[in-house]
Amino acid sequence: MPRRRGRRPGGADTRAELLAAARVEFAERGYDGATVRVIAERAGVDPAMVNHWFGGKDSLFISALELPVDPTTILAEVVPGDPDHLAERIIARFLELWDGTGGAPLSALLQSVATHDIAARLLREFVERVLVARVVSTVAPDQAALRAGLCGSQILGLAVVRYVLKVEPLASADHATVIAAVAPNLQRYLTGPLP
Amino acid sequence: MPRRRGRRPGGADTRAELLAAARVEFAERGYDGATVRVIAERAGVDPAMVNHWFGGKDSLFISALELPVDPTTILAEVVPGDPDHLAERIIARFLELWDGTGGAPLSALLQSVATHDIAARLLREFVERVLVARVVSTVAPDQAALRAGLCGSQILGLAVVRYVLKVEPLASADHATVIAAVAPNLQRYLTGPLP
Repeated sequence: MPRRRGRRPGGADTRAELLAAARVEFAERGYDGATVRVIAERAGVDPAMVNHWFGGKDSLFISALELPVDPTTILAEVVPGDPDHLAERIIARFLELWDGTGGAPLSALLQSVATHDIAARLLREFVERVLVARVVSTVAPDQAALRAGLCGSQILGLAVVRYVLKVEPLASADHATVIAAVAPNLQRYLTGPLP
Repeated sequence: MPRRRGRRPGGADTRAELLAAARVEFAERGYDGATVRVIAERAGVDPAMVNHWFGGKDSLFISALELPVDPTTILAEVVPGDPDHLAERIIARFLELWDGTGGAPLSALLQSVATHDIAARLLREFVERVLVARVVSTVAPDQAALRAGLCGSQILGLAVVRYVLKVEPLASADHATVIAAVAPNLQRYLTGPLP
């Protein structure tokens, strides 16, 4: 069967064009400033296509981030439960994920963030908006944005040292050891006293 | 005055060749396995040139790392003093440095670590050997290697979030705020109870 050629209205090309337009808009205007209407206009498609392909602005943003995994799905799994043990659940879930994929997707993410300003801006928007709204403010409404940045620093730093640099013994430590070592620090950033 | 051409014995070429050879040797054999003799052999120069240009294996290693600043100089400044406030001194000194240089050298370092396995291996050796020997084991002889990896995760993560991603309000927070937020966590990694 011959492959169809050229642009298919409403098809995979539309999805790719929406993603490309979304990356530019989110990076230029930030998560709050970017609108589905302008993104669709920039991609030259009907705004209804955003709902069709992504289910809304939020999921479009997550897809535009091109993270190896969708962090919002993970976070939705770990947030319910005792807030005083949230950090343990977060670290445990990320370790499972990262152990599965190894360092390659994390290296790719780092490289992209270090090389392309657009990738850095998108990840910043993710920490400033999504992480704050969906995780931190559910357990600590005060200084949620500062807490989110601090949490981001610990999670990202752990990922780099364990999976990209592979510093021992942290790189080979079992999950229980890593959780016992890191979770109290992450928990302080989530719910502890801050300046 | 005409510029001299070609290789100058014992000159700048020798230094560059020693650095190139050192990068390969340290990455292949690790800090402990690499020897001044083999590095000099690989560079095709007399081992005495290592002392002449770098003062020894240790400084040669630091130069081969190509870090924006020499961390051992910084660490030598902050280690003396009350061990219970070491984390505050470390964060304060790094903030001064990073604020001065901005995110560019940190982005370059990240990019290099994410792209070149050799850079990642050298930075791993740095955390595993230099950080352990010169900082962590001076304040906490038990589990010094695990502590060094954890400290590395927090310091590197803070650098990425504040200077590369520029997540607010952490990116614009004054030094006192960042130190009050991060130092207790770093201090736990240095001297607190670990699993």
